[in-house]
Amino acid sequence: MTIPHITPISNETLAGQLDRAINNKTKPLGSLGALETLAKQIGMIQQTTSPELREPAILVFAGDHGVVAEGVSAYPQDVTWQMVENFLAGGAAINVFARQNGCSLSVVDAGVNHDFGPREGLLNRKIAPGTRNFAQEKAMSAQECMEAIEAGMELVEALPGNVLGFGEMGIGNTTAAAALMHKLTGIPVADCVGAGTGLDAEGVLRKQRVIEAAVQLHDVNGGLPVLSAFGGFEIAMMAGAMLKAAERRMVLVIDGFIVTSALLVAARIKPEVLEYCVFSHCSDESGHKRMLEHLGARPLLNLGLRLGEGTGSALAMPLLQSAVNFLNQMATFDSAQVSEKSA
Amino acid sequence: MTIPHITPISNETLAGQLDRAINNKTKPLGSLGALETLAKQIGMIQQTTSPELREPAILVFAGDHGVVAEGVSAYPQDVTWQMVENFLAGGAAINVFARQNGCSLSVVDAGVNHDFGPREGLLNRKIAPGTRNFAQEKAMSAQECMEAIEAGMELVEALPGNVLGFGEMGIGNTTAAAALMHKLTGIPVADCVGAGTGLDAEGVLRKQRVIEAAVQLHDVNGGLPVLSAFGGFEIAMMAGAMLKAAERRMVLVIDGFIVTSALLVAARIKPEVLEYCVFSHCSDESGHKRMLEHLGARPLLNLGLRLGEGTGSALAMPLLQSAVNFLNQMATFDSAQVSEKSA
Repeated sequence: MTIPHITPISNETLAGQLDRAINNKTKPLGSLGALETLAKQIGMIQQTTSPELREPAILVFAGDHGVVAEGVSAYPQDVTWQMVENFLAGGAAINVFARQNGCSLSVVDAGVNHDFGPREGLLNRKIAPGTRNFAQEKAMSAQECMEAIEAGMELVEALPGNVLGFGEMGIGNTTAAAALMHKLTGIPVADCVGAGTGLDAEGVLRKQRVIEAAVQLHDVNGGLPVLSAFGGFEIAMMAGAMLKAAERRMVLVIDGFIVTSALLVAARIKPEVLEYCVFSHCSDESGHKRMLEHLGARPLLNLGLRLGEGTGSALAMPLLQSAVNFLNQMATFDSAQVSEKSA
Repeated sequence: MTIPHITPISNETLAGQLDRAINNKTKPLGSLGALETLAKQIGMIQQTTSPELREPAILVFAGDHGVVAEGVSAYPQDVTWQMVENFLAGGAAINVFARQNGCSLSVVDAGVNHDFGPREGLLNRKIAPGTRNFAQEKAMSAQECMEAIEAGMELVEALPGNVLGFGEMGIGNTTAAAALMHKLTGIPVADCVGAGTGLDAEGVLRKQRVIEAAVQLHDVNGGLPVLSAFGGFEIAMMAGAMLKAAERRMVLVIDGFIVTSALLVAARIKPEVLEYCVFSHCSDESGHKRMLEHLGARPLLNLGLRLGEGTGSALAMPLLQSAVNFLNQMATFDSAQVSEKSA
């Protein structure tokens, strides 16, 4: 496996040019807040003072998790493939929001426990029909893990645009994500575990105990070994896709708890990936806030979402467009003959 | 002046129908967070489980303020009319965001200290070329105040759509808004005053002292007397427009500090207006957070904006559309044959 080469976006000359371009717009200094930061970041990623968003895509990665055998989810495993069918039929939240905001949407079978057959709109990259139960053995072999990462990289090679939103579906994957979070950040398991799709307090405690026992069972360290032991195929594939997308200087739009856990893996492999990330929202899944703090990330939205699927990524797309638009379209104090601030 | 009649939106039968419609969508219960609350509110406003947003409009109300003579703004008064020219030329932030998000944009001269002549895109409702300096006398007469409110009502009569975003422009108007906030909420002046377009600490203190002295000078109470003493023509006109828009069962999209100060006035006259309001964002102008808390409002965005013009209203429009879209377009558990949560 060849790890993508990611160029840091820092460039003092361009940063200064972007600051001046933003500050000359007809508005009080800094008054567009987070949109100014975002416009500058997108400019730095694209190496221009006139960035543009072309053909934004959302990839939803689906996979099943052996650890559901431990009773860690409020929904039965069949919901993974049923929701993939819902995506293909256009009826899920992510379909609605991607359509509204002009994003192409593709669904990737990274490892769902179901035979879909050839289907329009479904990219078959199935590594296996679900991971193994990490409460008993490693979720995937090192070989499977690498295959998943490579599949993620390949998927990104084929994308025509320069913006990529990430989404996922997989019953049990908040458990995998919480285990990854604990191992990769050192934050106590209790602070990584949340209600997922709707566990009660007893269920959350069970989930916590399952993870605590599993981290005793698998004494692993480093991005790839941790990913193999606890991850999901959809998470590994997203990590690969993130690394390749950053290599291609795309804008990465990060969704909620599970997508961010994939980013923790990717950033452990190549920290430079973070410079290409826009954090779309802070999820209501309790660990996500801590995860974002760990990354020093400031999310654009905070709407109490906890749906996954890339819904936060899709909902944030208009804000990315607004950031680019104000930079490209607003008048300057000079051009509009508006007086500047008094000395 | 006839005060509009505003019907409370409460309707238990419809509320139950909306809850069921939202909860039957293929997603964990409550997982769309604030968008669910928003979808329900818009449904209640429009009295349907299938709401739709038609021809969203943004009205930007501009007016000048005599109190700028006290040195309360970082920018010269001429910036008010210069920015109106910028709006008419299409180069301001609000033009960019309204265009992007499919909102019509009209600019209202509520009382700018400048003669624009007849201009396309500018609605001339000038009450006077700026208010009087409230540090010395009441900002407007009772008659002027009523004229401004009535002009706001009339403007809304002419709108074809069912969503109205509010915006404003007026050098000095954070000073007027802070005075209104103090008088209408009882929050100490120091907590109502902020940097506006960019005052330094000394300037903020001067602004605070000006307001503290003025509230001693004008011993007034109640929505209209307070508005007359401290308000602006753009603020009064917005208050009138809000009342009429709620009477017409439109969705009111509230912007930042100044627009919310107009809402404080409108709500003092008719508290039911609040049920029709969507709070687009929490501004970086320091008093706005307290204002929103006072109203029990939860803003959709928190991006550190402090530009005014209705930029927050315009930026939030896609989220209103997303709320309506998920309610109308998402599949239900039944229709998509997705298993529900385990018992």
